[in-house]
Amino acid sequence: MTDKSSRTITTAALRAAVETYWATADARDWDAFAATLADDLVYELPQTRERIHGKDRYVRFNEEYPGDWHVRIERIVADSEGRQAAARTEFTVGAEEMHAIHFFTFDDRGRITGVTDFWPESYEPPAGREHLVERY
Amino acid sequence: MTDKSSRTITTAALRAAVETYWATADARDWDAFAATLADDLVYELPQTRERIHGKDRYVRFNEEYPGDWHVRIERIVADSEGRQAAARTEFTVGAEEMHAIHFFTFDDRGRITGVTDFWPESYEPPAGREHLVERY
Repeated sequence: MTDKSSRTITTAALRAAVETYWATADARDWDAFAATLADDLVYELPQTRERIHGKDRYVRFNEEYPGDWHVRIERIVADSEGRQAAARTEFTVGAEEMHAIHFFTFDDRGRITGVTDFWPESYEPPAGREHLVERY
Repeated sequence: MTDKSSRTITTAALRAAVETYWATADARDWDAFAATLADDLVYELPQTRERIHGKDRYVRFNEEYPGDWHVRIERIVADSEGRQAAARTEFTVGAEEMHAIHFFTFDDRGRITGVTDFWPESYEPPAGREHLVERY
């Protein structure tokens, strides 16, 4: 007999998984970080079209990542029906600040199976809409 | 007596609101587009630090936006507990393709109160991680 039951993951559990993922990365606690990930995780960076297969290589990618960076979560959007989440973060490396966006998918135990990162950069606004917008 | 009850918005309703928002924008049906928005909506573009206050100005911003652009939804992450959603889209303008990311917040009737857009651009990957990544 095969157990075909699909486990229900709560919105709170997905949010907690994303919080643990970033807290353990920020603390360079790579064992605890790895525990949030599924073995067959796939990591994607669409802007550079880079992809990493597997938990071990992905943990190593993070371990080897240069710089004394630190991360603060700005927002987590957790979708238990879709078994997915999105997050906005702020990274600091010394005086430099960067904003990033991350999409996550999860398996039926709440482990992360997919991470997709975006690193949008600042640019000057196009002309012609000054009558509608303010700058901040 | 004040009605302090907070309405429950379902995950499916938030997802449907995001789908209607993009379908009506793609069709240039600005009345139906406006119907997805709260009057006091705030639109933000963190990359250019631009902000628009109010539904009327935001609809006009979209009406006036140049180019025969079209949009396809890639993913919607809908969080009914947080009354928020995130979406990934692909925009085409002729042969040009762009990817965008959008965060939404909603009022207790499921109308959109906040939209934050990101337009990440492609870049060359830094050296030193070729042993872990593949390109796609």
